[in-house]
Amino acid sequence: MSVVIQNIERADQEVIAGLAEAGVATVHEAQGRKGLMAAAMRSIWAGARIAGSAVTIQAPPGDNWTLHVAIEQLQKGDVMVLAPTAPCDMGYFGDLLATSAMAHGCKALVIDAGVRDVRDLTAMGFAVWSTAISAQGTIKESLGSVNVPVVCAGALVNAGDIIVADDDGVCVVERGEAGKVLEAARQRMAAEDAKRERLAAGELSLDLYDFRARLAEKGLKYI
Amino acid sequence: MSVVIQNIERADQEVIAGLAEAGVATVHEAQGRKGLMAAAMRSIWAGARIAGSAVTIQAPPGDNWTLHVAIEQLQKGDVMVLAPTAPCDMGYFGDLLATSAMAHGCKALVIDAGVRDVRDLTAMGFAVWSTAISAQGTIKESLGSVNVPVVCAGALVNAGDIIVADDDGVCVVERGEAGKVLEAARQRMAAEDAKRERLAAGELSLDLYDFRARLAEKGLKYI
Amino acid sequence: MSVVIQNIERADQEVIAGLAEAGVATVHEAQGRKGLMAAAMRSIWAGARIAGSAVTIQAPPGDNWTLHVAIEQLQKGDVMVLAPTAPCDMGYFGDLLATSAMAHGCKALVIDAGVRDVRDLTAMGFAVWSTAISAQGTIKESLGSVNVPVVCAGALVNAGDIIVADDDGVCVVERGEAGKVLEAARQRMAAEDAKRERLAAGELSLDLYDFRARLAEKGLKYI
Amino acid sequence: MSVVIQNIERADQEVIAGLAEAGVATVHEAQGRKGLMAAAMRSIWAGARIAGSAVTIQAPPGDNWTLHVAIEQLQKGDVMVLAPTAPCDMGYFGDLLATSAMAHGCKALVIDAGVRDVRDLTAMGFAVWSTAISAQGTIKESLGSVNVPVVCAGALVNAGDIIVADDDGVCVVERGEAGKVLEAARQRMAAEDAKRERLAAGELSLDLYDFRARLAEKGLKYI
Amino acid sequence: MSVVIQNIERADQEVIAGLAEAGVATVHEAQGRKGLMAAAMRSIWAGARIAGSAVTIQAPPGDNWTLHVAIEQLQKGDVMVLAPTAPCDMGYFGDLLATSAMAHGCKALVIDAGVRDVRDLTAMGFAVWSTAISAQGTIKESLGSVNVPVVCAGALVNAGDIIVADDDGVCVVERGEAGKVLEAARQRMAAEDAKRERLAAGELSLDLYDFRARLAEKGLKYI
Amino acid sequence: MSVVIQNIERADQEVIAGLAEAGVATVHEAQGRKGLMAAAMRSIWAGARIAGSAVTIQAPPGDNWTLHVAIEQLQKGDVMVLAPTAPCDMGYFGDLLATSAMAHGCKALVIDAGVRDVRDLTAMGFAVWSTAISAQGTIKESLGSVNVPVVCAGALVNAGDIIVADDDGVCVVERGEAGKVLEAARQRMAAEDAKRERLAAGELSLDLYDFRARLAEKGLKYI
Repeated sequence: MSVVIQNIERADQEVIAGLAEAGVATVHEAQGRKGLMAAAMRSIWAGARIAGSAVTIQAPPGDNWTLHVAIEQLQKGDVMVLAPTAPCDMGYFGDLLATSAMAHGCKALVIDAGVRDVRDLTAMGFAVWSTAISAQGTIKESLGSVNVPVVCAGALVNAGDIIVADDDGVCVVERGEAGKVLEAARQRMAAEDAKRERLAAGELSLDLYDFRARLAEKGLKYI
Repeated sequence: MSVVIQNIERADQEVIAGLAEAGVATVHEAQGRKGLMAAAMRSIWAGARIAGSAVTIQAPPGDNWTLHVAIEQLQKGDVMVLAPTAPCDMGYFGDLLATSAMAHGCKALVIDAGVRDVRDLTAMGFAVWSTAISAQGTIKESLGSVNVPVVCAGALVNAGDIIVADDDGVCVVERGEAGKVLEAARQRMAAEDAKRERLAAGELSLDLYDFRARLAEKGLKYI
Repeated sequence: MSVVIQNIERADQEVIAGLAEAGVATVHEAQGRKGLMAAAMRSIWAGARIAGSAVTIQAPPGDNWTLHVAIEQLQKGDVMVLAPTAPCDMGYFGDLLATSAMAHGCKALVIDAGVRDVRDLTAMGFAVWSTAISAQGTIKESLGSVNVPVVCAGALVNAGDIIVADDDGVCVVERGEAGKVLEAARQRMAAEDAKRERLAAGELSLDLYDFRARLAEKGLKYI
Repeated sequence: MSVVIQNIERADQEVIAGLAEAGVATVHEAQGRKGLMAAAMRSIWAGARIAGSAVTIQAPPGDNWTLHVAIEQLQKGDVMVLAPTAPCDMGYFGDLLATSAMAHGCKALVIDAGVRDVRDLTAMGFAVWSTAISAQGTIKESLGSVNVPVVCAGALVNAGDIIVADDDGVCVVERGEAGKVLEAARQRMAAEDAKRERLAAGELSLDLYDFRARLAEKGLKYI
Repeated sequence: MSVVIQNIERADQEVIAGLAEAGVATVHEAQGRKGLMAAAMRSIWAGARIAGSAVTIQAPPGDNWTLHVAIEQLQKGDVMVLAPTAPCDMGYFGDLLATSAMAHGCKALVIDAGVRDVRDLTAMGFAVWSTAISAQGTIKESLGSVNVPVVCAGALVNAGDIIVADDDGVCVVERGEAGKVLEAARQRMAAEDAKRERLAAGELSLDLYDFRARLAEKGLKYI
Repeated sequence: MSVVIQNIERADQEVIAGLAEAGVATVHEAQGRKGLMAAAMRSIWAGARIAGSAVTIQAPPGDNWTLHVAIEQLQKGDVMVLAPTAPCDMGYFGDLLATSAMAHGCKALVIDAGVRDVRDLTAMGFAVWSTAISAQGTIKESLGSVNVPVVCAGALVNAGDIIVADDDGVCVVERGEAGKVLEAARQRMAAEDAKRERLAAGELSLDLYDFRARLAEKGLKYI
C-alpha cells in the first residue's frame, strides 16, 4: 500500500509567485476561508514567506525514511508537506536533509511534527513550518507514501496543491483553483489599499463599511 | 444587552507612563501579586513594552464586529482588550484594523484570541499580546459590548484600568489604585537597585536577606 | 528530608566545552538517543548554546527559596536545573537572581517552570531554558533540596551531569559517560561533514545510504 | 489585604432549586449566554446536578489554608468556589474537608485546581467540579480571601451568586438576576417541550423554525 | 459555495453491521492502520458501539445552522459527522436536535467540537463522540455544507463512508473498501481467537510469534 | 544497550497489600509527598485500586515489542510500567496482551502512552492507568529495555518499586522504603479517623488544628 507517485502536475510558477506575495491571510480570504492549517503550525524563524508546489509525504510516527524517498521527487520550487500517521513531535528533519532538499530545489518544509538543527536551518535560510522543535531522532524501518493525499495539521493537501506560508501560518490552495484565487487575492489587495488610506486618515470603519444602521437595527445601545 | 459605554474615566498619563517603565513583573509585585493574565498571553514581537488605559471589548467567538465599534471610543494612549465569550483562536485583527486603531491613538491590543498580518503589525510597530496567531477570518453578525467588565486570559478588566505589558506578559492595574501601585513599584525598584549591586559583587542572597537561620530552623541539612 | 549536597563531582571542562560545540541533536544521537528533555523546554532567547555541570534543585511549587540556597553551591561554568515537585508555571527566577548566579559563575538556568524579567535576562546574556514565561511571584516558605536527583521535563538529572542546551532544546549527559559521548559526537560530526558535501552536490541520500534495495524489499511501489 | 467577608447575601432557596432543575444549558441560554465556566471544569462523578449560593475562595497556588477558613462561613445549601491565584493542578480538597463542609451544609465544591480522594467523595455523594484530579498535597502558609470576587475557570463569581452545575459544566448566575433568569428558563423549557414533541414526530426543524427562506436567501444550494 | 449534496451512496447494511461488531481497533488494523480520528474524540457515555454511513457537515465555528439542514438528509442508520471550519469547543448539539435526528433514523453524532445536554443524550441512548462538552450556545447566521468531504479530528471523511466508533475512538472506512475491510477484520478476529486461547493458557507471545531469534539478532541482552 | 534485567527484588506481599489499602493520597503524604505521577495518568475504568511490584519497560515510541519481552519477566502481583522514549499516544496494549499478562500474574499496566480494547480490558477487570486511549497500532522493529530505571509521567521508577494506583492517580514507593511508608500511612489513617469523627460532628478544622492564632498573626481580617 506504500506508493510513490512520481509525476505530479504543478501550478504555473507565476501564479505561485503571486500567491506568495499575497500572503496567507489574503489568500485564505480570497479562496473563501478554507485550506488553513491549525494555528500550532508555526515558522521556526521569523519573516519566512513562500509559496510552492506540494510534494506530500505520509510517514509513520517517528520514522523519517519516506523523507529520503521524497527528495528524489522534488523539482525546483517545491515544498515538502509531511503528515505523520499518528501524533508525533520527534525531529524528522535536520541540516543534512535540508542540504539535500535544497540541492534539489526545495524551498521549504511544512511538517505536523518536529524538526531539529534549528540554528543551522535558520543560517541556511531553509524555511520550515512545524508543530514542534525536537532533537529526538527517528528511525528508518517502515514505509510511507509520497504524493498521496494527506491531512496535515487539519488541512487536506493533494500533491501539486500550492502551499502558501508566512508568519501567519500555512494555507493550502487547490491546484485547479490557483489562478482564480490569485485573481481574487489581487482584487482584495487593491481594495484594501484604498481602505487603508482612508482608515489611516482617521475615517472610522463604522462609516467606511456603513455599519451603523445594521448595528442599531440589531439593538446596539450607546450609553 | 449589548452596550457601548462611551465616556470612561482614565488614569493620569504620567502615572501610566511610570507603570510602563516599571514593567509587568515589578507592577505585579507592587500591587500584591494580582491582576496577571495567563502565561499563554504573549507579545507577537519581542521587546514591546507599553502601558495604557483599557478600552474593553466583549466579542462573540469568531465575530470581530465589536472591534470596529470600539475604535470610535479610543483616545490617545488607549489599549484595546478583547475577550471572546467562548474560547476562540481565530484572527480577529489585522493590518487594516491596526491602521485605523493607530489613527485614533491606540497603543496596543491585548486579545484572548488570534491576530493575523503579523509581519505588517510588526513593521507598523503596533504592539499586540495575543493567545494565538491565525489567519482565520471572522464574521460581522452578532453584537458584543464595549467598556463593560471582561475576563481576559483569566484577569478581570474594567474599562479605564491600566494595562501594563511587556515580554513577561500582561498585568492589569485597577484605575483607582494606579497611583499607589506606581509609588510601591518605584520603592521596589529603588530597593532592588541596592540589592542588585551587592549581589553583583558576589554577596549571597542567603546573607543579604538573612535566610540562614530560618532555613536551619525549618530543618535544612547540609551534607 | 531536605538536603543540600555540597561537594559534587564535575566533568572535565574541556569535555564540557566539546559537548557544547557538538550541540544537542548530535550529543543526543551520540549517546544513543537518551537524556532529552521534553520539547516544551525552550530557550527564552534565540541563539543560546551552552554546556555545563548540573547543580540540581528540587523546589516546592511556587516557592523559590531553594534557588537562593543553590547559588551558594555554584562553581564557574555550572548550570542550575530546577524541577518543581508539582506542575507550576510561576516565575521562580528574574534579573536579581540572575545577577547573583552570574556573580558566582553560573552559565545558565534550565527550569521546568516559569521565569520573568525576560528583557533583562536577554540583555545580560544569561541563558535560560524554561517551560513558561510568567511574572507570577513565588514565596519562600518551604524547603527543597540541592544536588539530589531530579526529574526535569521528563529527564532524570543527577548533580554533576552535563547539561547541553541550544535552540533544539536540552539534553542531559551522565557525568561518567561524558568523555565517551564526546568522542562519539566528534566521530558523528566528521562523518556528517563528508555526507553533507555529497548531499550538497546533489547526490541522493537514497544512494548515499544505499536505501533502494531495502525499500523495494519492504514493498515500496513507484507509480 | 487578605479578608474574610462574613455576611453575604444569598438568593431565595426556591429560586435556587428552580435553577438546579433547569440545568446549566437552559440557564446559560436564559441569561443571554453568559457566566459559563471553561469546558475543562468537569464533575468528578457522572450525574451530579446542583445549584447553590457561592462562597468564594481566592487561594494561593498549592495552599489550601483558606478552604479551612471558608468552611466557617458556610450556610446550608452553599457551594464553595475556589480560584487559585496562579494555575495549579494540586489536590486542595479531599474526604476530610468534604466531611467538614458537609457537616456545615455545603452542597458542592467548584475548583479551578485539583481534588483527591475521588472514591470517597463519590461514595459520600459530595459533588465536585474541578479542572484536575491529583493526590498532590497542599500547604498552609499563605493567606487568601473568602467571599471576594474571583475569576474561576474564566468566569467572574461574586459571593452569593448562584452556581448551577451538572454534567454539562458550571454556570454562574448573578444574585440580583436570579429570579428573572429562572422565569426565562421556565419559559424556555415550556417552549422546548412543545418543540420536542413536534420534532419527535418527525417534523423538521427547518420547517418548525421556518429556516428555508433565509437559507435560500443566503445562497444555500441543493445539488 | 455552500451546498447540500442530496443523494449520496451508502454501503450495504450488513457490511456496516459487521464493522460495528468488529470494533474500532480491529477495523483500523484490518484496513492498514488508516482512518483513525485523533484520541481527543471520545464518547460522552461508556459502552456506546456503532457503525453507520456518514452524513458530513462542514459548519462555521459556533454556528449550528447546518446541523438543522443536515437532518433532512438523514436515512435510517446514518451517522452525522461535523467538522467546524476553525477550532471550536462550543455546544452545537443537544437534546432537541437529538430528538429530531433520532426521529429521522440517525444513530450517532461524531463532532470535532462540543455538545450539551449530556444527561439527556445519555438517557435517550443517543451516541455521541465529541472533542468537548460545553453548554455554550451557537448561532444560526452563516451557511455551511452537507455531504462535502470534511477533515474531522484529523481524518478525511467523505459522505457515505462508514463510521465505526466505540470506547476506543472513531475510525473511518472508505465506502468502496468496506466489504474488503470487513473480510480482513473477520480473518483478524478469527486469528486472534486462536491466539487468545494459547496466551490465556500461559504461552508467551515471544514463542507464539517466534520473536526470540530476531530479538537476539537485533542485540537484546539478558542480564 | 537494550537489556532485560531478569531477577529483580520485590517488596513483601503484605506490605504491598497494605499500601493498596492505604491508597494513593495517603501513601503520597506518608512518604513526604514524592513519587506522584502527573495528573494526566488516569484509570481507564472507575474504581480500580491496586498495588504491585514494578516491572519497568522502556519502549521506543510506537513500538510495543518490548511489552512482549517484559511479560516473560512477570511474577504474580506485578505491575508493568511503560515509558516511551519520546511522547506518544499510540495504543501499545490491548486485550491479547492483557490476556497474556494476566496469565502470568500481572495485576495492572501503568503506561505513559495509549491503550486500546478498553471495553474488553474493563470486562476482564484488568486495571490500566494510561495517558491516552487510542486504537492506533504499534510496530515491532526496535528494541527497548526491561527493568531499567524509567521516568514515567514525570516520576522515576526502578524495577521492584511499589506502584500504588487508584482513582486519584499513580504513586511510586521506593522498594527500600515500603515498610516505613506503610507504617506512616497507617498512623496517618488512624489519626484521620479521629479527625473525621470530630469534623463530621461539626467541629471546625480552624479549631481542630488550632489555626486561628496563626491566621490572625499573618494578618487575616474578618469584615
